[in-house]
Amino acid sequence: MQADIICVGNELLTGLIENSNAGFLSRRLWSAGIPVREVRVVADDERAIGEALGKALQESDLAILTGGLGPTDDDLTREAVAAILGLELVLNQQWFEKMDQFFSMRGIKMPDNNRKQALVIKGSTILENKRGTAPGAMLNTDGKFIILLPGPPHELQIMFDEQVLPYLVKKNQGKLTTVKTLKCIGLGESMLEERIKAIGKWDLPPISYVARGFEVDLQIKGSGDLESASVLIDEAEKRLRNVLGDHIFGSGDDTLADIVAKLLTEKKLTLSLAESCSGGLLSDTITDIPGSSKFYRGGMVAYSLKAKIEALGLDKELLDREGEVSDAVARAMAEGANSLFKTDLGVGITGIAGPDSDLSGSPVGLVYVAVATSKLCESRKLNFGGGRRAIKERAAQIALDMVRKILINI
Amino acid sequence: MQADIICVGNELLTGLIENSNAGFLSRRLWSAGIPVREVRVVADDERAIGEALGKALQESDLAILTGGLGPTDDDLTREAVAAILGLELVLNQQWFEKMDQFFSMRGIKMPDNNRKQALVIKGSTILENKRGTAPGAMLNTDGKFIILLPGPPHELQIMFDEQVLPYLVKKNQGKLTTVKTLKCIGLGESMLEERIKAIGKWDLPPISYVARGFEVDLQIKGSGDLESASVLIDEAEKRLRNVLGDHIFGSGDDTLADIVAKLLTEKKLTLSLAESCSGGLLSDTITDIPGSSKFYRGGMVAYSLKAKIEALGLDKELLDREGEVSDAVARAMAEGANSLFKTDLGVGITGIAGPDSDLSGSPVGLVYVAVATSKLCESRKLNFGGGRRAIKERAAQIALDMVRKILINI
Repeated sequence: MQADIICVGNELLTGLIENSNAGFLSRRLWSAGIPVREVRVVADDERAIGEALGKALQESDLAILTGGLGPTDDDLTREAVAAILGLELVLNQQWFEKMDQFFSMRGIKMPDNNRKQALVIKGSTILENKRGTAPGAMLNTDGKFIILLPGPPHELQIMFDEQVLPYLVKKNQGKLTTVKTLKCIGLGESMLEERIKAIGKWDLPPISYVARGFEVDLQIKGSGDLESASVLIDEAEKRLRNVLGDHIFGSGDDTLADIVAKLLTEKKLTLSLAESCSGGLLSDTITDIPGSSKFYRGGMVAYSLKAKIEALGLDKELLDREGEVSDAVARAMAEGANSLFKTDLGVGITGIAGPDSDLSGSPVGLVYVAVATSKLCESRKLNFGGGRRAIKERAAQIALDMVRKILINI
Repeated sequence: MQADIICVGNELLTGLIENSNAGFLSRRLWSAGIPVREVRVVADDERAIGEALGKALQESDLAILTGGLGPTDDDLTREAVAAILGLELVLNQQWFEKMDQFFSMRGIKMPDNNRKQALVIKGSTILENKRGTAPGAMLNTDGKFIILLPGPPHELQIMFDEQVLPYLVKKNQGKLTTVKTLKCIGLGESMLEERIKAIGKWDLPPISYVARGFEVDLQIKGSGDLESASVLIDEAEKRLRNVLGDHIFGSGDDTLADIVAKLLTEKKLTLSLAESCSGGLLSDTITDIPGSSKFYRGGMVAYSLKAKIEALGLDKELLDREGEVSDAVARAMAEGANSLFKTDLGVGITGIAGPDSDLSGSPVGLVYVAVATSKLCESRKLNFGGGRRAIKERAAQIALDMVRKILINI
């Protein structure tokens, strides 16, 4: 099985919206053993959509269209697909009533033009939309599969993972590409490569590297039948873990925050934060994890000197003496978080995210991160580049990695 | 002038790398008045590249190809373009020496396969690469422009901005597309459309809609010469503002947080937050704005009952009586933020982000947002769908919009 992806939307062609759907679907299809032949991004234009679909059905077994299922006049995907297949659109009464409910639950009368979203291509199977009013659709015609998905990523992703992928995996049985991803932190791409090359001759499945900020994904790609590929991948993983140790923090879709959450939950420990330059990003990252309320008690974003003293309770003299951006203040923040929120682990982050330096003249990108427990307090001094957002992100990554390492050894 | 973009690379079709080049180029071309007709992502395959280019040259005046200019055997863009145009590849001695220097500066002997990068299409103009070893190229053939750019975004972006865009703007002189984007909040896409349709006959430049969570961008697209397009766009804007009032919060690249930051700075007022279900996302959003330390004092993420009582200082009885997710608690949080951080405006957000309901059985997606000043306290009860992240994002958007409306009237 081979796929074509067609993303519909003027907003993609003007760059107003980043096209994250193409990457998401490509990754999912690839790991399900279905290579993507081509991705096309076309305008909200019936002719353009129809032409792209015609070509896709010539070349591939599977065509996935995203976007253009909204309620407005320029949403034309349904119409274009129906036209090229010579099928008609019919009103789905059930979906109509579902939308009516969706709006009345929100205390709003359903606008007339939403009616259009209950029009479905005759003979297609409706895909439920847990997060919006546009139904998806699956069609099977002349041995080809056509799938229509809504454009908003949070609607598309859950619909694809729950309703489409299981179906495709079943259809494509036994032809999976076997890939294992190891997630690393604390070593750059080239240092990782050096360590791996030092293992010597590598007669195992090939490894590729993808850097994401301070993290690097190592992908081991096996081929052939599932069983023999797995044996070789397992052997490769063993050798890599041997030389990389706890620089490997997880595998697959694991994030650093997932791993920290897992460790905290297992060890029944609680966490709190005191953030300055990271501005709440670390708190946001942690609370993205379902169930984080089990271990995360709270965080303080102490973005001003006053907040550090009056709200977080730091010693004014310490701040005057050491400066807001200092090792001592990061440590005091970590400990302050523990005493304010009554937790086992506290994190303190203070630094200069820029664009300007602070009054003391500390350089932009200078960040101190500290983690405290009742028994220890560890800290690191870092110099980040890459602009305001990158500095916030890297500070949060380092903090999570420090928490992870402490948790491993508790 | 109209453009086609062709992105070359297997790593894009497996989703290993996010395709940020398509969005970058689309945005740049759009603002230079050159609409993109289509984006295609094709494999490292000479036939696929050639076919996509052939079609692009039929449909558009300009074809931009990205990627496939590297030194390895699977980099085939040069070869494919030369083949389809019937041109030969010739060694560029200057580039060869430049690469040699590039490597020796880094203390490395140039690998043999880099020689390939000094092969250029006969008759093309070389584009300098400040950040890598792959030269770009520009070709003008039969009145069509073909541009080859390297795949790594940090190489491509600076090359495009410095060497390609000025050239295209000059070539396209006097034919700029004039676009004005109005940013709206508080009305859904379909309700906006209804209000706009109620204006009656629309003989002005066409409007398109792009929804982002609770925000909708209205794009007014003028054509023809700059002056007459501007007059029509201004008239369209006037009519839209007339029916939409302060649902329009900004224009162009403005974000809600930008506008709130601007209003706070102008009015010399300070802000603090008390977040529960939004988990620090609003704090993160605000601190992404350079200069936010001028008005943002701090925030508390009170993620547990204990934190709400002990760290934020809320009344235990109130929490017991009303429940953590209640209008009264959101108001108390907003006021608590003001007294903890000594600010003019305080925001309180409490709700259920899911996946599970709380002990009291409040439904997932129920959120209360309150904003307090010394004189007033406003609150809203909301029911969001869309999953954990979407609930956080929408709560933050609504809070910013409430702050904005209060600031307008202060």
